[in-house]
Amino acid sequence: MNQALERLKQTIHEHNLDLLYIDDPSLIGYFTDFESEPHERLLALFVLKDRAFLFTPFLEENDAHSVSSVPDILSYKDEENPWEIIQTKLISFNQSYQKIGIMENNLTVDRYNQLLSITDNPKTLDISNIIQSIQLIKSKTEFNKMVIAGKMADKALEIGINTLKVGISEQEVVAEIEFQLKKLGISEMSFQTMVLFGDHAGSPHGTPGARKLKDNELVLFDLGVIAEGYTSDVTRTFAFGEISSEAASIYDVVLKAQEKAQAAVKPGITTGVLDNIARTVIEEAGYGDYFTHRLGHGLGKTVHEYPSLSKGSTMEIKEGMCFSLEPGIYIENKIGVRIEDCVYVTSDGCIPFTHTPKKLTSITKK
Amino acid sequence: MNQALERLKQTIHEHNLDLLYIDDPSLIGYFTDFESEPHERLLALFVLKDRAFLFTPFLEENDAHSVSSVPDILSYKDEENPWEIIQTKLISFNQSYQKIGIMENNLTVDRYNQLLSITDNPKTLDISNIIQSIQLIKSKTEFNKMVIAGKMADKALEIGINTLKVGISEQEVVAEIEFQLKKLGISEMSFQTMVLFGDHAGSPHGTPGARKLKDNELVLFDLGVIAEGYTSDVTRTFAFGEISSEAASIYDVVLKAQEKAQAAVKPGITTGVLDNIARTVIEEAGYGDYFTHRLGHGLGKTVHEYPSLSKGSTMEIKEGMCFSLEPGIYIENKIGVRIEDCVYVTSDGCIPFTHTPKKLTSITKK
Repeated sequence: MNQALERLKQTIHEHNLDLLYIDDPSLIGYFTDFESEPHERLLALFVLKDRAFLFTPFLEENDAHSVSSVPDILSYKDEENPWEIIQTKLISFNQSYQKIGIMENNLTVDRYNQLLSITDNPKTLDISNIIQSIQLIKSKTEFNKMVIAGKMADKALEIGINTLKVGISEQEVVAEIEFQLKKLGISEMSFQTMVLFGDHAGSPHGTPGARKLKDNELVLFDLGVIAEGYTSDVTRTFAFGEISSEAASIYDVVLKAQEKAQAAVKPGITTGVLDNIARTVIEEAGYGDYFTHRLGHGLGKTVHEYPSLSKGSTMEIKEGMCFSLEPGIYIENKIGVRIEDCVYVTSDGCIPFTHTPKKLTSITKK
Repeated sequence: MNQALERLKQTIHEHNLDLLYIDDPSLIGYFTDFESEPHERLLALFVLKDRAFLFTPFLEENDAHSVSSVPDILSYKDEENPWEIIQTKLISFNQSYQKIGIMENNLTVDRYNQLLSITDNPKTLDISNIIQSIQLIKSKTEFNKMVIAGKMADKALEIGINTLKVGISEQEVVAEIEFQLKKLGISEMSFQTMVLFGDHAGSPHGTPGARKLKDNELVLFDLGVIAEGYTSDVTRTFAFGEISSEAASIYDVVLKAQEKAQAAVKPGITTGVLDNIARTVIEEAGYGDYFTHRLGHGLGKTVHEYPSLSKGSTMEIKEGMCFSLEPGIYIENKIGVRIEDCVYVTSDGCIPFTHTPKKLTSITKK
């Protein structure tokens, strides 16, 4: 049985739940090994004290059988009412459902109401934090998958750099990166690949477009790949030709902030302290107002998980956690620099998943 | 002001709501023109009787100001509690909040609880169906965007066909299609592009992989692009070389089912009747058990919207609706054929968004 599912069963017993309900597709992949995107159809995992079953759309049933670590699979056709089928199944177990574990952070109100209506008007317990804690500490198997995802992210940066030339557009660089990766077997990116030139990088969430590369400006890459169901995430900013002394000086500040935070990662430190280490470097250089987001976020099966490394946050860092460290400075319509590695916390420090050099690299113009 | 937002304001008055809350990113794009993917951060639209405001993460605020048709924009930083900021704003309007419109089909339980806690323990009205009805009928502007998205989907099929050769893998074809599209300015697909060869198409939701194309088999493409925020969706199955008489005969059945349903589309008919027209053709040919999904789904800003064309469904088709017609026959590990056009309902019929021929096309081997 899937190890993570074993921990769900422990949760049931620890909190004396009659039923635990999960319908987030990524979590279902995590707990059953069945990866699927059912769109608006219902895909749900039901865990009871002594059994579990997976509920899928009919057209997913065969695929689910071939990979799911939960062998009991029930399905519904598009014209059927899924909740009636589930109710019949639940009744067949001859038990009451008076205390149910749900994930308030992704369960929708209508499904919540449906779930309550087919059980015994139960008390609910929000298990979002418990599930997030289970996912927070990565297993060796998960670590290995994230190492592969990280290597492919480095590869993506290499492809990106090799593509740069005067006159190429941001979206052409994105196209080339994703094309080369697809040929290497990567079918999905962690998020929309970001390639921003010069002033266009002055917005931390810019969208690559028709903007063409000019001589002597910065190029920001923020990207990640999904490998074996696990994500990576990396940001590098390169100099294409010569850049201004202001740009170089901003780069140095961001690099120092990133490296100082990364060097400080170890079990026992808190997320807020890490954020503060990077933020202080940037504030002392006079750019505090231009570092407009948190230092980082956890990642694993998805690219935004616990922990959140934001100002004042207090989560204690533990061995096995994985998260990004990505300070940036953004001066609107002028300049943007961000540097990011994601790391795995070891017993006395951390290992980054990406290894593309962080020292300012000047790319020779072709 | 955005026309759709005007209809939201009508909804407020018709149902005598004090507040209407929406936090689905795609809907926020629809109602405010601000397109964003905030991940786990809160992005929400608040509509009151005489005003509206948009609540965004701080790092999205500038981007929102530059495009949002709702000028009043409030933001929060990562270290702040968004609900406290919203509460202060709501209190400043000096009114009570006793009846609130929410979307039960996408509002999460935790946000629902937060929303209730910062208002006056209000009654809630589920406005999911109202919002879906607003989106159901496409405006001329929306139609025009979907025409572009459809043209690009035809282009994608053309690229895909030109890529086919013995020995190429499914994922290489996907890579080539998306690469060429990106160079044409398409940055996002409606969903993961599907290219399946021969027996691999026997699962309706297969994933393109390393499977290589052989002589004389079927090739199934299911893909769509997003153009100006609107989606397309098309499926074609081609013969690469000569195919068996069984495959050709299955193709004919699917084509007949698809064309018969498409010819029947007009205002006044119901979704279930359309499903039944296609399903009957397939059943009468003896393949009823192998058409394992509904006939189609609505699309617009997203690729799965109302209406749902499933067995027994009863929604009346109206002018301006847009949906797919996509019957298929799947014989596991052997053969899969699906043919799909998405259409716009006119006063007396429908216009397809895609025009790639549906008659069985044999692709000459290179």
